[in-house]
Amino acid sequence: MGIEDKLQLLREQMQKRGLAAYIVPTEDFHNSEYVGDYFKAREYLSGFTGSAGTLLVCMESAALWTDGRYFLQAGQQLAGSPIELMKSGQPGVPSLSEYLAGHLETGDKVGFDGRTVTRAFVEELRKKMAKKQIIYCGGEDLVDLVWPDRPPLSAEPVWELAEEYAGLSREEKLARVRQKMQEEKADALLMTALDEIAWLLNLRGNDVCNTPVFLAYMLLLEKKAVLCVQEKILSQEIKDKLKRADVTILPYEEIEKQVGSLQAGQRLWADGRRVNYQLLNTIPAGVEQLDQPGPAALMKAVKTPEEMAHLRAAHVKDGVAVTRFIRFLKTRVGREEITEMSAAGVLEGFRKEMEGYLGSSFAPIIAYGPHGAIVHYEAVPDTDAQIQPRGLCLADTGGHYEEGTTDITRTIALGELTAEEKRAYTLVLKGHLRLGAAKFLQGVCGQNLDCLARQPLWENGLDYNHGTGHGVGYLLSVHEGPQNFRWRISKDTDCVPLEEGMVISNEPGLYVTDKFGIRHENLVLCRKGEQNEYGQFMYLEPLTMVPFDRDAIEASLLNEQEKAWLNAYHTKVYERLSPYLEEEEQKWLQAATMAVE
Amino acid sequence: MGIEDKLQLLREQMQKRGLAAYIVPTEDFHNSEYVGDYFKAREYLSGFTGSAGTLLVCMESAALWTDGRYFLQAGQQLAGSPIELMKSGQPGVPSLSEYLAGHLETGDKVGFDGRTVTRAFVEELRKKMAKKQIIYCGGEDLVDLVWPDRPPLSAEPVWELAEEYAGLSREEKLARVRQKMQEEKADALLMTALDEIAWLLNLRGNDVCNTPVFLAYMLLLEKKAVLCVQEKILSQEIKDKLKRADVTILPYEEIEKQVGSLQAGQRLWADGRRVNYQLLNTIPAGVEQLDQPGPAALMKAVKTPEEMAHLRAAHVKDGVAVTRFIRFLKTRVGREEITEMSAAGVLEGFRKEMEGYLGSSFAPIIAYGPHGAIVHYEAVPDTDAQIQPRGLCLADTGGHYEEGTTDITRTIALGELTAEEKRAYTLVLKGHLRLGAAKFLQGVCGQNLDCLARQPLWENGLDYNHGTGHGVGYLLSVHEGPQNFRWRISKDTDCVPLEEGMVISNEPGLYVTDKFGIRHENLVLCRKGEQNEYGQFMYLEPLTMVPFDRDAIEASLLNEQEKAWLNAYHTKVYERLSPYLEEEEQKWLQAATMAVE
Repeated sequence: MGIEDKLQLLREQMQKRGLAAYIVPTEDFHNSEYVGDYFKAREYLSGFTGSAGTLLVCMESAALWTDGRYFLQAGQQLAGSPIELMKSGQPGVPSLSEYLAGHLETGDKVGFDGRTVTRAFVEELRKKMAKKQIIYCGGEDLVDLVWPDRPPLSAEPVWELAEEYAGLSREEKLARVRQKMQEEKADALLMTALDEIAWLLNLRGNDVCNTPVFLAYMLLLEKKAVLCVQEKILSQEIKDKLKRADVTILPYEEIEKQVGSLQAGQRLWADGRRVNYQLLNTIPAGVEQLDQPGPAALMKAVKTPEEMAHLRAAHVKDGVAVTRFIRFLKTRVGREEITEMSAAGVLEGFRKEMEGYLGSSFAPIIAYGPHGAIVHYEAVPDTDAQIQPRGLCLADTGGHYEEGTTDITRTIALGELTAEEKRAYTLVLKGHLRLGAAKFLQGVCGQNLDCLARQPLWENGLDYNHGTGHGVGYLLSVHEGPQNFRWRISKDTDCVPLEEGMVISNEPGLYVTDKFGIRHENLVLCRKGEQNEYGQFMYLEPLTMVPFDRDAIEASLLNEQEKAWLNAYHTKVYERLSPYLEEEEQKWLQAATMAVE
Repeated sequence: MGIEDKLQLLREQMQKRGLAAYIVPTEDFHNSEYVGDYFKAREYLSGFTGSAGTLLVCMESAALWTDGRYFLQAGQQLAGSPIELMKSGQPGVPSLSEYLAGHLETGDKVGFDGRTVTRAFVEELRKKMAKKQIIYCGGEDLVDLVWPDRPPLSAEPVWELAEEYAGLSREEKLARVRQKMQEEKADALLMTALDEIAWLLNLRGNDVCNTPVFLAYMLLLEKKAVLCVQEKILSQEIKDKLKRADVTILPYEEIEKQVGSLQAGQRLWADGRRVNYQLLNTIPAGVEQLDQPGPAALMKAVKTPEEMAHLRAAHVKDGVAVTRFIRFLKTRVGREEITEMSAAGVLEGFRKEMEGYLGSSFAPIIAYGPHGAIVHYEAVPDTDAQIQPRGLCLADTGGHYEEGTTDITRTIALGELTAEEKRAYTLVLKGHLRLGAAKFLQGVCGQNLDCLARQPLWENGLDYNHGTGHGVGYLLSVHEGPQNFRWRISKDTDCVPLEEGMVISNEPGLYVTDKFGIRHENLVLCRKGEQNEYGQFMYLEPLTMVPFDRDAIEASLLNEQEKAWLNAYHTKVYERLSPYLEEEEQKWLQAATMAVE
């Protein structure tokens, strides 16, 4: 069926209900970053496969909003379809709510599946169309009626993360979360973020692409814990263990009834930014909502000593695989045919050789030459470029291991580089090194430190249009909050002090359109350092163990301190990785980690 | 009359009214940083002369809270009195509200002059004593009844700041503020901050120590502007000009009636953090309060091109005076008797020689040796130290000129320094230089940049326990918001992007108890730099023009970039100041600004 036909079927359903417009976002019911196939309604209807975008279908028109990462891809995938591409944030491009305000008449009805949007999204619509009496219909998933071969809701088996890895039992975690509820005088806590539920129960699954979580909701009370989940994904052993932790298992869809049965006068902790619109609407009148981030996000972000120890091991494994990949690429390019996609396959092969490897933590980005300048480039057969023995190849990939999640970017020099490429590589490296070497007082937030990574670029009138770093989960989502390295501070910004045990990426970049892209990414672990009369100092321990490319460094641009930091890191990389390498590989790594002078 | 007698008189008044406690804060009715003599009730009752502190008088006890700057001074001044010193923030020391919660019984009455406290202060009391039904009596100034020789309310003549200096007429400023009111749909704006009113009307006064402002309130409506002020401080000429700008003049005390006459349904913009408690309580029921910072603070912080040009001139004058002072101190110390207080007098003399000098912008800090480690040290006859030809002397002073306000700290090397002193001096200088050289994107806040100044100290396990910088007014308060350089971010933190025209101090320090203190302070002017595909870059233009002390610099600790920044600054200092110096002074400055290699 073509796009036109699919939209026609949807419009017939809209007409039956008197809807003037229907909105199809990308999200699942849990506001997940990646979603399972069941939830790919926007992709099904529009043909656009990117990870972010919102489709709007009106009776006479249709439009799709996506961000700068996907302008090119969306343009190609929507070409020839009746769907207009809306480049979010570009001058003159209306936002979805502005567009709707221009197209709807007073009294019109707009529909959407209320489980796939947030309250903030609906509030934004209301605000922009305050003067028109628009009726919002969030109760029905119309796409389901027009998608004959829709994949079923994913129901992959749940498995247990051994306490040896987690460091805390689920009983201990439940007690800690309940302690926070007590502090906030909350009678109930509604958890809908899949990584938080997986973390809390020391369980993992496979219902969402690149993220080892399972579809579930959780309602926690003082004396009761209700897990709403497809029962078939739980083994008897896990059910028994959950029972021992006093967790009641109910069907996945049952969550609305559970929330709806709360009593007036009770205080429910539910994060209005995360819980979906429809579920928030089922909170009975008289139940007070404590609308702030739930306690699990921060607890999960602060890794236990056991998690920290395992993470170091995971990063040595990942470092071996990535170092092998870099050696492969640098030594074989030009001698055999290598494309971006085949290179990604080679790296995946090296990772699979590692014990405990479970799969990639996001779709690999192997971006050669000008492709490197497209920040979220993902090679597909149409774009898959031959890698040549010249210029730069950006490789941003990551894996899940039983010992934790990795995320690493290296930019690899192939053959001779231009002076411009070396200068750019080195300026970004200076920023990476300065942030990585930061020592700071407890209480400092990522917002305070971001500029350390940007300063060498800003001094030269350069910048990168993304955050410097994101939090990383432990065998959970490769992107987690609340910790990060960003500079923008707004009312809605999470500004949390960096605590011992938080894992954050340090990944400044520089992107020169049509030429090359550079990004240097290590994961760093926030640690306590010296404590003295001035306070508790903190530092960032690098977890990632992979050399930077000496062939791309313009040493004259590094100051003595930066050279010392780089050389110390390279010494550590060699020490950690060499025991796991073959003799030839060891020799190669020794040369690759020689001191820069 | 002794302290005991004064407290006794107050207690008699308290008893008549059935008050169990009475609170005497430091503030005037305008939440000013410095206050006029009329408002020094806490000083009168307690004998403590510091600029911050709150006195609590109960029937059987009395206590005074002050912060770390004043522990020493308050300890000396309260010694022998019945008032207990409470060191705010020290472990085990209760806050005022905690102390009250421990001393008051259910149903007790606590009194204070509601014009001298903020609503936040009273809310904090309510919160801490939520379980006791305390009655808050903010309607009466009891100190007035027991202070026979209280100085009258200051009523110094108001004078006009020429439009040539301000850059905008009062009519233009009124129109801009009203524009903001319209954007916020505010029918009225209540202004109580004295510097905002002085800024808005292009008037200056002399009712508050170190700050050229006058006592006034302002209520601005769309078609009406009411200035509540002691009429006698306005000349006929100024009254005529205000009339031409449609400003109605009413008595100072009339403000409460004016606010009280607002109509239900109107929307009043009144910053609950600044407007005093009693005045907020006069807002009639049904008047909606828009409780956010008023528009004048930000407008005032962004200097006009005319103000910027005059500021440069003011800083050259101030630079000449301070440079003469440094030369005097370095060449005469050991040859004649110089004390901290006499040195302050010498510097004041040099400033007075400058045309357009109006007075100091705060009490001068000349702190020799160990006194430098006391952050807000102010020499008094009892502490006034002889300055010797060895060690470091910290000089933090500032002046008001018609062309603007200055604030500068230099730490001056006298004779040979120890290696520890030179290292400390140079580490602080590195931070000062790094922040001063910052180039950054528009949108960046002071919170993003603060760490640049601290990094060289943090790397060595050192810190200073104060912000790196504060905003500075134009011939107004030497401390103004909302711009600053600080790293702590909280819900109540002002995080505002740095805009072209903002003036901020850059003043990292290091304080080694019983040894020395170091602070390097320039005022910097935020400027627009290069604009390119990455955005609008900003930089900080140094306004202060005074050399750092080459004798104190350990050059081996500076990297090449830092040396280049320092030498470029010194070249500019010489160029700007030398035309105004005598030949001998020029020679001295030439040597003092020679390149550091």
